[in-house]
Amino acid sequence: MGDRVPSVRFLGRQHRVSISTVLQAYFWLEGRGYIEARPRSGFYVRLPFTERIPEPKFEERESPPHKVETGAVIDEVLRSIAKPFMTPLGAALPGPEILPTNRLNLLLRRAINQRPFHSGSYAFPPGWDALCRQIARRSLEFGCNFAPSDIVITCGAMEALNLALRAVVRSGEVVAIESPTYFGVLQAIESLGMRTIEIPTHPHTGMDLEALENAIRNHHVKACVVMTNCHNPLGYVLADEQKRALADLAARYEVPVIEDDLYGDLAFEGRPRTAKSFDQAGMVLLCSSFSKALAPGFRVGWIHAGRFRVHVERLKFITTVAAASLPQMALAAFLESGGYERYLRRLRVIFSDQVQTMSRAIAKYFPEGTRVTRPMGGYLLWTELPKRVDAFGLYRAALRENISILPGIIFSPTARFKHHIRISCGYPWSEELDRALVVLGRLCQRAM
Amino acid sequence: MGDRVPSVRFLGRQHRVSISTVLQAYFWLEGRGYIEARPRSGFYVRLPFTERIPEPKFEERESPPHKVETGAVIDEVLRSIAKPFMTPLGAALPGPEILPTNRLNLLLRRAINQRPFHSGSYAFPPGWDALCRQIARRSLEFGCNFAPSDIVITCGAMEALNLALRAVVRSGEVVAIESPTYFGVLQAIESLGMRTIEIPTHPHTGMDLEALENAIRNHHVKACVVMTNCHNPLGYVLADEQKRALADLAARYEVPVIEDDLYGDLAFEGRPRTAKSFDQAGMVLLCSSFSKALAPGFRVGWIHAGRFRVHVERLKFITTVAAASLPQMALAAFLESGGYERYLRRLRVIFSDQVQTMSRAIAKYFPEGTRVTRPMGGYLLWTELPKRVDAFGLYRAALRENISILPGIIFSPTARFKHHIRISCGYPWSEELDRALVVLGRLCQRAM
Repeated sequence: MGDRVPSVRFLGRQHRVSISTVLQAYFWLEGRGYIEARPRSGFYVRLPFTERIPEPKFEERESPPHKVETGAVIDEVLRSIAKPFMTPLGAALPGPEILPTNRLNLLLRRAINQRPFHSGSYAFPPGWDALCRQIARRSLEFGCNFAPSDIVITCGAMEALNLALRAVVRSGEVVAIESPTYFGVLQAIESLGMRTIEIPTHPHTGMDLEALENAIRNHHVKACVVMTNCHNPLGYVLADEQKRALADLAARYEVPVIEDDLYGDLAFEGRPRTAKSFDQAGMVLLCSSFSKALAPGFRVGWIHAGRFRVHVERLKFITTVAAASLPQMALAAFLESGGYERYLRRLRVIFSDQVQTMSRAIAKYFPEGTRVTRPMGGYLLWTELPKRVDAFGLYRAALRENISILPGIIFSPTARFKHHIRISCGYPWSEELDRALVVLGRLCQRAM
Repeated sequence: MGDRVPSVRFLGRQHRVSISTVLQAYFWLEGRGYIEARPRSGFYVRLPFTERIPEPKFEERESPPHKVETGAVIDEVLRSIAKPFMTPLGAALPGPEILPTNRLNLLLRRAINQRPFHSGSYAFPPGWDALCRQIARRSLEFGCNFAPSDIVITCGAMEALNLALRAVVRSGEVVAIESPTYFGVLQAIESLGMRTIEIPTHPHTGMDLEALENAIRNHHVKACVVMTNCHNPLGYVLADEQKRALADLAARYEVPVIEDDLYGDLAFEGRPRTAKSFDQAGMVLLCSSFSKALAPGFRVGWIHAGRFRVHVERLKFITTVAAASLPQMALAAFLESGGYERYLRRLRVIFSDQVQTMSRAIAKYFPEGTRVTRPMGGYLLWTELPKRVDAFGLYRAALRENISILPGIIFSPTARFKHHIRISCGYPWSEELDRALVVLGRLCQRAM
């Protein structure tokens, strides 16, 4: 493990094939996570997740519909996220140096030159046409075949989620959610006066579909929010059968499924399908954005709302009219130029490495009894601490040390996951990060 | 009227003052609309509104709270707004050639160079700090003295309006609105499940405050949406006493006033105060944006939410996280550079001219009995047609001739204003516009 693989030239000579053929083979292996390229050094066999540290436990707790009770805590935590000078293990943001900043800036400048009047009008819904076309073209990658006119561009995936919820659920009604789930979903649901029902969610197989079906039958569930790929915070990629079952369930009970595919492009073993790709009935509303892999500051996301398209497009216009024009133009040009797939291959290796390095550091510095997920994509680690460690106390203590992490309770409307934290591995490993993990480990020990 | 005023040099010699002093005097007169500069020609006395055509009548109709019934009609009309190849008298958009496109593009390029990682992170709420500071500085112009931390940046004024409504009114509750009012307000209210009560609104003095007070007393009004400057569609600028009375009313009854100041910078006689400037109680939520005078495609607006700031900032984060970073940076630089006031002086003259030219064309081509507002700012004309002309029929007939106008009924939740249209004068006068007005006039004649 960790060994250098034969050089491209050597292997080419050995097998009497061209260098580009060997490179293609190595890229294939790289894309699937078997080997990794190191700058100016060559290809190496990749290290797997350390086997020293077990995965978090799965608790099969069911509960009746509930208001979101954790709103105030989420607020407190999110205010701390935006603070500068923190070691950034909280917000799910990639290190800016990882992103294709130069290329995007070049395309922005080019868009300014080619369309000097870009700022003079709105990119009215559904959105900038060339971008809708590129998203439709890319939809083949995740098992769909969208028409450009099916896409509605939004101000990030967060707006897409909000519009989806508003289109299919009314104030007071019940939304089924994963447990744990992304706290933004909880905030949106709370702010719209809706209620939640937490469905037990397994760290590998996701939402328990039997429990979901029971909830639909017994609690008038009006929609279901899921993350099928690179789950936030659990990191799983659901198997295709699970996705198909979800789409079937949505069709059978006529309960819309809001599928948040924000990290889908970042699955380590290549682009997985979506539940949407099994959706014959138009009951899946697929939300995504370019914030996690390309440009958070552009605030460009999108939604394919199935049979709710007209309603969603209308709400989009009413809420924010349009997304900013120039970022849409630059993104369309980026996707048109065809380098996105190659870029993603590189990005997946980077994030996979960062996640593994962080995982090893947790194993090394955190007390015994700590458990960590083994994400199949994205850059988030869900960490279960020994039962005696209060994770919210740890979050606050870390904050005093200028280290930002997220406490588990904000991933549940009823403050479950009191001993869990989420750690973002979006930034390249550094001495600062190593030091921060040492400090976190010590704070954990002290809390026991 | 229309005469050339003495040349700058001549007047300087005559009064023995410097050329820059004369220019300052001329700019002062220009800013107040008494004279106008013509490129390469000098200054001229401005033509007043044609006196041939009377203003629309004021109907003092009161009515009980009502759901928005015109949602479907608004949808139909707005779908037609975005169509290309139309003579653009519908959407309230300035002609792109009027906007400072080159300068904004320069500042965009500079921001890209200075902050190459602009797209790599969110401009977390409240927003890009330098822009908040510039808005706070400018608030002196409209009688306020904001702290930068009071401002929350939004994705346009439409998001600001939505957040304001969501912060102070709940589903099912009643919002007092002007009649006529901007249709976007009606859509927002409808989509949030709120109800409206139409307050009679005079074309000069705005919302009837006695009627508003009655509505507050009798119908549990939870908020009031007003446009105090350059009203859309009526064009009035309220007197300061009226603004003060509105702020007092809000404080006395603890009913929040949502003040939409979108066109405030475009008042022909210089920047008027806001009702917010009389707000001691923190009960006025001031919404605005840079869409009408600078860059619609940037999608950058803002809100000062008074005592509701924390709630609004939270909703902003939940709904769209942040506005795009780069446009905020360019706008901050534009305002910092100090040219905005000079630019506005020029813009006011342009729009005042365009509004007057359009008004004269309506007087010339439309049937007798037509009435037109005399806007004090902005670029919208509210036109009352003879009673026998169905304005919605006219809107549809115009659409078939590729002319976009807005029918009056979308400015009321109960489809009032059946004989009114709104005409945008955002584009420089041209033969195409002249021809379109001829066609509209003929269609009116035919409909009688």
